[in-house]
Amino acid sequence: MKVGVLYSGGKDSSIMAVILKRMGFTVELLTANFGVYDSYISASKSAEALNFPHNVLNLDKNILKKTVDIIVEDGFPNNGIKYIHSKAIEEIATIYPIIADGSRRDDKTPKLDKDQIRSLEDRNNVQYINLHGFGFRTIETIASDLFEISYEKSYKKSSSDYEVEIRSLIEEEGYLSKDFFPEHHQSRVIGFK
Amino acid sequence: MKVGVLYSGGKDSSIMAVILKRMGFTVELLTANFGVYDSYISASKSAEALNFPHNVLNLDKNILKKTVDIIVEDGFPNNGIKYIHSKAIEEIATIYPIIADGSRRDDKTPKLDKDQIRSLEDRNNVQYINLHGFGFRTIETIASDLFEISYEKSYKKSSSDYEVEIRSLIEEEGYLSKDFFPEHHQSRVIGFK
Repeated sequence: MKVGVLYSGGKDSSIMAVILKRMGFTVELLTANFGVYDSYISASKSAEALNFPHNVLNLDKNILKKTVDIIVEDGFPNNGIKYIHSKAIEEIATIYPIIADGSRRDDKTPKLDKDQIRSLEDRNNVQYINLHGFGFRTIETIASDLFEISYEKSYKKSSSDYEVEIRSLIEEEGYLSKDFFPEHHQSRVIGFK
Repeated sequence: MKVGVLYSGGKDSSIMAVILKRMGFTVELLTANFGVYDSYISASKSAEALNFPHNVLNLDKNILKKTVDIIVEDGFPNNGIKYIHSKAIEEIATIYPIIADGSRRDDKTPKLDKDQIRSLEDRNNVQYINLHGFGFRTIETIASDLFEISYEKSYKKSSSDYEVEIRSLIEEEGYLSKDFFPEHHQSRVIGFK
């Protein structure tokens, strides 16, 4: 059973990948990229450290442009992140029969609701799996038990979140990315304990 | 990390138990019983076949009585099942720091919504885990890959669902349980493949 997991190198998507592997799936990790910045490098290092095959999911730069438009229009990132994530999920649904991401119970965004999940599964004849059964504290518990983790200020070299390329394009368009993304610390999985 | 898993011997709660064990938790399985019928025996056999420790969670018969009242009043079981499950979950939340059940994404009942989960976790200072990240088809995929399963008509000896004792008490009270529970096939995990 092959499963494609949208992967950022963070705790959530790393736990999703490990659960699926330990339950017998053949796991392949995929990190979205829109050709603006090589933000997938961090995730590819995490994937290698955890012994998972990793590929870059090359997506149309226009998706990133529309994401930036949404965020600049809104003044905050939630709807833009939701949009870009749904596009990435739709893309891997055309490639793998089973797909997954690391969204958890208390995530606000990116998150597919129940109707979106049903639609995604039915239109593409895929199965979609995520971490909605796990809350923040449980993810922390599992991650600290399983992984070596580095915590760094969110910046380009330590993250493969959508945020990296979104911020790059926002800056290219003459805005200040810090007006839309508050500074926060980024955790990255750097290996098993 | 010790976790108490509400366990029926079915596919869902068996998969939840296996995921948690494979992620490093010390798993203990618990089957609710209200003193009306020894419905836990089927689950204890499944637990043994999967090499998990298993205990009976003895609960107040008045919970079962109220459940039957709700179901007879409604004419259908959903709200009653929701009630009895929430009582069982509340009980194990007083015993274990981390608790889990096998409810999955497309279950209608028993299922805690997001607000109920937050309340459960905050009031009891526990972490609650379930299978909301997995849909029906994925559960079937995993179960058929992992487990030997027996399929039988739902009857007393092959199930440890709440339904068994509810039906017993409904009959004791002079009703026909088939007026409330449609006949359906019951799957039970009888070992690993």
